[in-house]
Amino acid sequence: MMLWLFLILPVIISVTSRSIDIHDKSTPKTVSDRLIELVTQGAFRGVTYYRLAALTDTIGPRLCGNESLTQAVDWVRHAMIGEGLENVHVEPVQIPHWVRGAERAHLIQPRIAKLSMLGLGNSVGTGPNGIQAPVLVVRSFDELDIRCEEARNKIVVFNPQCDWVAQPVGCYGPVVAYRAGGASRAAKCEAVASLSRSAASHSIDSPHTGMMNYDPAYPKIPAASLSVEHADMLERFQQRNQSMEIFLYMEAHTLPDVVGYNLVAEIEGSTLPNETVLVSGHLDSWDVGQGAMDDGGGAMISWTVLSLLHSLNIRAKRTIRCVLWSCEEFGGIGADQYFTAHENEVPTMSIVMESDMGVFHPRGLEFTGSNKSQQIIQTLSVQLQSINATQILPGGGGTDIDPWVERGVPGASLLNDNANYFAYHHSNGDTVNVFNSTDIDLAAAVWAVYAYSIADLDNLLPR
Amino acid sequence: MMLWLFLILPVIISVTSRSIDIHDKSTPKTVSDRLIELVTQGAFRGVTYYRLAALTDTIGPRLCGNESLTQAVDWVRHAMIGEGLENVHVEPVQIPHWVRGAERAHLIQPRIAKLSMLGLGNSVGTGPNGIQAPVLVVRSFDELDIRCEEARNKIVVFNPQCDWVAQPVGCYGPVVAYRAGGASRAAKCEAVASLSRSAASHSIDSPHTGMMNYDPAYPKIPAASLSVEHADMLERFQQRNQSMEIFLYMEAHTLPDVVGYNLVAEIEGSTLPNETVLVSGHLDSWDVGQGAMDDGGGAMISWTVLSLLHSLNIRAKRTIRCVLWSCEEFGGIGADQYFTAHENEVPTMSIVMESDMGVFHPRGLEFTGSNKSQQIIQTLSVQLQSINATQILPGGGGTDIDPWVERGVPGASLLNDNANYFAYHHSNGDTVNVFNSTDIDLAAAVWAVYAYSIADLDNLLPR
Repeated sequence: MMLWLFLILPVIISVTSRSIDIHDKSTPKTVSDRLIELVTQGAFRGVTYYRLAALTDTIGPRLCGNESLTQAVDWVRHAMIGEGLENVHVEPVQIPHWVRGAERAHLIQPRIAKLSMLGLGNSVGTGPNGIQAPVLVVRSFDELDIRCEEARNKIVVFNPQCDWVAQPVGCYGPVVAYRAGGASRAAKCEAVASLSRSAASHSIDSPHTGMMNYDPAYPKIPAASLSVEHADMLERFQQRNQSMEIFLYMEAHTLPDVVGYNLVAEIEGSTLPNETVLVSGHLDSWDVGQGAMDDGGGAMISWTVLSLLHSLNIRAKRTIRCVLWSCEEFGGIGADQYFTAHENEVPTMSIVMESDMGVFHPRGLEFTGSNKSQQIIQTLSVQLQSINATQILPGGGGTDIDPWVERGVPGASLLNDNANYFAYHHSNGDTVNVFNSTDIDLAAAVWAVYAYSIADLDNLLPR
Repeated sequence: MMLWLFLILPVIISVTSRSIDIHDKSTPKTVSDRLIELVTQGAFRGVTYYRLAALTDTIGPRLCGNESLTQAVDWVRHAMIGEGLENVHVEPVQIPHWVRGAERAHLIQPRIAKLSMLGLGNSVGTGPNGIQAPVLVVRSFDELDIRCEEARNKIVVFNPQCDWVAQPVGCYGPVVAYRAGGASRAAKCEAVASLSRSAASHSIDSPHTGMMNYDPAYPKIPAASLSVEHADMLERFQQRNQSMEIFLYMEAHTLPDVVGYNLVAEIEGSTLPNETVLVSGHLDSWDVGQGAMDDGGGAMISWTVLSLLHSLNIRAKRTIRCVLWSCEEFGGIGADQYFTAHENEVPTMSIVMESDMGVFHPRGLEFTGSNKSQQIIQTLSVQLQSINATQILPGGGGTDIDPWVERGVPGASLLNDNANYFAYHHSNGDTVNVFNSTDIDLAAAVWAVYAYSIADLDNLLPR
């Protein structure tokens, strides 16, 4: 059996067996009601979760530059074509190819123990002999500045503290600064490697990877994350004046750029096909877990928007375009090139939507736009009263759509109960287990109702 | 510096610097109030957590039969002697020596992926070539019985379901049955290996190890646990009719028994020194994480009971004996031999107490005993009103003290907020991070107040 059949099979079966229930109701319904019904009670109930699980189980995580990402693009593309979506195609982009390779870290002193680590994306390796060195633990860049001389020839461990219980999402920014920039700050003090506490709201000894960047002013030194537990343990050794030594081995290296693909599909507009509503998520992920949360779920609900409209044979006035981005994780690489190629569409783009912060139980929409457009969104939100997802908060955006938003295009992201997002983010815990099928259906409903309603307005959203 | 100095240093410092605050109050206080004050606000505030962290950071986990367990016994023994506790000694016992060795599991079909696994204690290995076989996933022994023929020459995966949110502790029993007995049930169906879903209330792709047993009627096949996420993924492959193959490699083997040590210390009774209250926890752990929760914490609060009384120079009428058991994890091995050697003390043992279910925020005591003794415990509980830990629930016991309880000796365990216990239990997440110092101090207070009060009653607890 062709693997991609796993993706479309349940749709075919369920539409055949259950679509009659959906269409023979006698009272007229709004399109939004029909979309909600189809995905929460009708033939598409459970389909988005099924697709997400089939994709991420069978292909696994999809690191930028890896064959698995290309397989995922092919798989979804085949399924979209088989389903009958319109204008299904890929748009090639140039993407980086960082390779993790084998890696490990061991505590050598005061006892031999394996440390729970993950190398950081973009990091260099240690060379074939690894690096063994004493350790300096600091809680902040300020502390490192003060203790800069102590860091020389050591492995610096950044152990930033934050009240993650109080701020399960808000702590990410301040903590991730050490993952992103720690290596060069440590290199400035002549450290030999940089380890950072995982940016995690909860941990079961789970290291979290992610992107880092080098400041060209300083030598490139290897950078990895440690589990919260191990970062804290190292800090306690230091507090007790126990001498510490760590051995770090990383084969990480960067190969020449390769070709990646943004995947596009559409439901063309009936009367204004050259005006567009863009719904999106990214198909690439880190090379841990399954990449189901970040961002398989966002990609799948964006696909489902088109599937629902196609299944109901409904067209909005404007074109609804689904884009599944390539290589978000290395800094919106695919989306940046998409924007450059499509910049001429800024005037005709009504809204850009990206779901990249989980598809947990949805509450509504995060929106960025003019006051006038906010009022329109507020008006549209009443269509989601039946599923209690009418909240509108500021802050709509996402790495992949921000170039559009910065040019004045209204932007939106899914508002959902994602307080546990950073417990799983970029870790082996990023699997379909974090979601449930009912919530994903509701998230797809929110996504579809807004995409359709905005695409069917008389005018573009006002800037 | 001698390593064991890390353990006693903070006590010395803090008693010197802060003990004046404790003793110059003018109003007379009960012993229980003084114990609570000393450990929550006085010189012993934070000491139990400090000891736990110093021990489990520096020595790490302490698998039965391993050198690290002997090191831990030596370390605590030295610290107890240095502190001036009475009758500090070890009692040798014969303990098993299971060796994990290198181990790994890979999904081979439908894709290559590392599976998150931990071999189970007592399991045999796979041999040097490992085992590669197709997979049958079942949810229960009943399902396996029905599909017994399908299991032949396969790796059987047990994926028992339970509502862990509703029963975060109660699910352990039904789920762990598959860890304990799955291998022989699978072997009965001529399976080649057995993998079981981790007995975990929450997971970030975390495998949980633990003890298993072979039924001598069937061949011994290798047994390991899988993370919840990977067990579910395998089940989904099966539901989608995707063919599965797993490669399993385990060097696990059992060496001849070795000598282990129960560690004993006492505060002798003033007037009835031959009657005893026993407080305890086990010093061994699984070879993952730090063994801080299971059961470093229980061992440390039991030690603290003696430290507090010694520091206050207080003796109860009866002897209070702290026993830190050897090799609980392989089935109460050290404690069983202790009972055999001390069976003559059944008539003079007032109560046996073991803390082995966490030292999270304490609520009171779990108690097993006659109605009369329950009434006495109820009366004593009022002494814990100031720290709101007066609850008494039935169910006091523990692997190490059950031989005494079965002979009619009253038994008690710590009642505490341990709903997350099975998120960390027997996994790499079992570290000091799961606790906080304030809660451990409160747990030690509960433990000390009951131990002292019962030891100072006019009579033994009535049977």
